[in-house]
Amino acid sequence: MIAYDYEHFKNDAKTLSSLCREFQADTIVAVARGGMTLAHALAMALDIRNVQSVRAESYDGDCQRDTITVSGKCDFLDSSRILIVDDIVDSGQTLASLMPQLRSEYPHCEFKTVALFTKSTALLQPDYSLHEATDWIDFFWERDYLKSDLL
Amino acid sequence: MIAYDYEHFKNDAKTLSSLCREFQADTIVAVARGGMTLAHALAMALDIRNVQSVRAESYDGDCQRDTITVSGKCDFLDSSRILIVDDIVDSGQTLASLMPQLRSEYPHCEFKTVALFTKSTALLQPDYSLHEATDWIDFFWERDYLKSDLL
Repeated sequence: MIAYDYEHFKNDAKTLSSLCREFQADTIVAVARGGMTLAHALAMALDIRNVQSVRAESYDGDCQRDTITVSGKCDFLDSSRILIVDDIVDSGQTLASLMPQLRSEYPHCEFKTVALFTKSTALLQPDYSLHEATDWIDFFWERDYLKSDLL
Repeated sequence: MIAYDYEHFKNDAKTLSSLCREFQADTIVAVARGGMTLAHALAMALDIRNVQSVRAESYDGDCQRDTITVSGKCDFLDSSRILIVDDIVDSGQTLASLMPQLRSEYPHCEFKTVALFTKSTALLQPDYSLHEATDWIDFFWERDYLKSDLL
């Protein structure tokens, strides 16, 4: 298991924002919940004010569910270059379900995807990613906010 | 100016989640951009999977704008107790604009509001808040992700 703490994330968010900058996104979409802190970070680093979210849950505790549910409505009326942000692309089912849906619903928009970690076996590889996920990642947001007596 | 770093936030998020727990929210709405990291933290602490976002921008750099724009569509079909999450309630204009709109559009839902910092002069005081804002708060998400040569 890799303990992924805030200091690591801070540096990664800066590096990822440098990679994504060339896309010149005008809109960021967080894949909730996992992508929310990274989406906030990239929005600040890239000075993007149009930040939205969709929900996708594929994990139930430590177990990956069979089905992916993506929900939440976006508003891309003023958008043309949209960055979809998730923490980890594991099976890739979330993005593989979400991206065709978005591209078909908003044909006037260009989409790119970004994640901190990606599994080499993922159905869909994100456009920007920093690390290959070879082990379980213990993200700080899954650990730091729990009451200590629950740990 | 108060330098508000991640360690401070981590402890505050835990404390805030204890305060909010009694509301038994089933849905969290982040007020983007400022509320996104806190919304992620509270969603994890309170084990809430239904996380959505709206956009509200009242600051332009360091200057508060005259008008508040709130945008973004929520889906509260499966929701009944909704926690609205922002980082700071300053003038209170964001929540004063957002809350009547949400309550009128979704009369079947109960809403409560939460923020890390609140000004005593705010138009609307959130239901849950930890600190009175008496100075400019330098949130880590406004500082940590910038390229060091831009600081």
